[in-house]
Amino acid sequence: MTQTIAEANISDRAERLDSAGSAWTQRIGQNTASASLQFRATADPVGSVGSTIRAGRHEFTVDEPAALAGQDVAASPVEYALGALISCQVVVYRLYAHQLGITIDSLDISADADLDVRGLFGIEEKVRPGFGDVRLTVDVSGPATEERYAELQAAVDAHCPVLDVFTNPTPVTTTLRVNS
Amino acid sequence: MTQTIAEANISDRAERLDSAGSAWTQRIGQNTASASLQFRATADPVGSVGSTIRAGRHEFTVDEPAALAGQDVAASPVEYALGALISCQVVVYRLYAHQLGITIDSLDISADADLDVRGLFGIEEKVRPGFGDVRLTVDVSGPATEERYAELQAAVDAHCPVLDVFTNPTPVTTTLRVNS
Repeated sequence: MTQTIAEANISDRAERLDSAGSAWTQRIGQNTASASLQFRATADPVGSVGSTIRAGRHEFTVDEPAALAGQDVAASPVEYALGALISCQVVVYRLYAHQLGITIDSLDISADADLDVRGLFGIEEKVRPGFGDVRLTVDVSGPATEERYAELQAAVDAHCPVLDVFTNPTPVTTTLRVNS
Repeated sequence: MTQTIAEANISDRAERLDSAGSAWTQRIGQNTASASLQFRATADPVGSVGSTIRAGRHEFTVDEPAALAGQDVAASPVEYALGALISCQVVVYRLYAHQLGITIDSLDISADADLDVRGLFGIEEKVRPGFGDVRLTVDVSGPATEERYAELQAAVDAHCPVLDVFTNPTPVTTTLRVNS
């Protein structure tokens, strides 16, 4: 299902970002409600603890290693969460570099995270089930000054959707439907 | 890179969960520090705003639709975040159903989420960049009473790592390295 992304050079990217940006400006200028997007994902369980996720026309597989009762054929939920975070940073670095007129020659982003499984297993209720700590490292190179890249970083971190999901509480309601 | 997950029947799953559970109990009983796991993911940008994510031996592609300057060849970061959430719920439903002795015949989980892109674009600084609201729907069927499935839901929601990432603040530090 996943195809390969075609390489894009700097002018391809600038053109896509310009065109997307002006379309949003026009759309939101005409009608604020057009800024409200709805996203939907569904999980179809497969194997022991895995699932196939569908979102729009895309799908991907999630599994766990054997230590968490899976077959280790795909990344785990917490790895997908970290992947969502750093891929979102990539998008927002592209957006704001374009907006601020800052050239990026190379970009690499990594996340390192700690998780104490006593939270998941309920062994120690004071331990949170999620990540205790996440460390992002952003390696950038290009012709701009350090100050300008720092300005870019501040703009990205203030506007990155998945970073917001990590660092601030998001209201989640769960509805259980028991079907007989 | 992603293989197919082999089907697992109820006894396969029970065996994997038993074996994983007793290994953790023994390991953590001997040494609490063995409960501390480290996760790492790296993003290698590709195309206009996409990236290839690597986590352990697995990798996956993230992109955006054309409206966000991508080529729409894979799900987007926020869709991966929702996929991480519902796939994590699947794992934790499996774990706690096994632990509480509650049989699940079928399980389907979906997430619906709202996102106002004025936050991402910095058009309205009072609008958060992430999800304003997330609604999970869990459809379960099986021979247990509604009360027991509600007990299972409460145990899952108290111990689900990615639900914790969504609903509570996670400390994230970002280090920018400018390479000349």
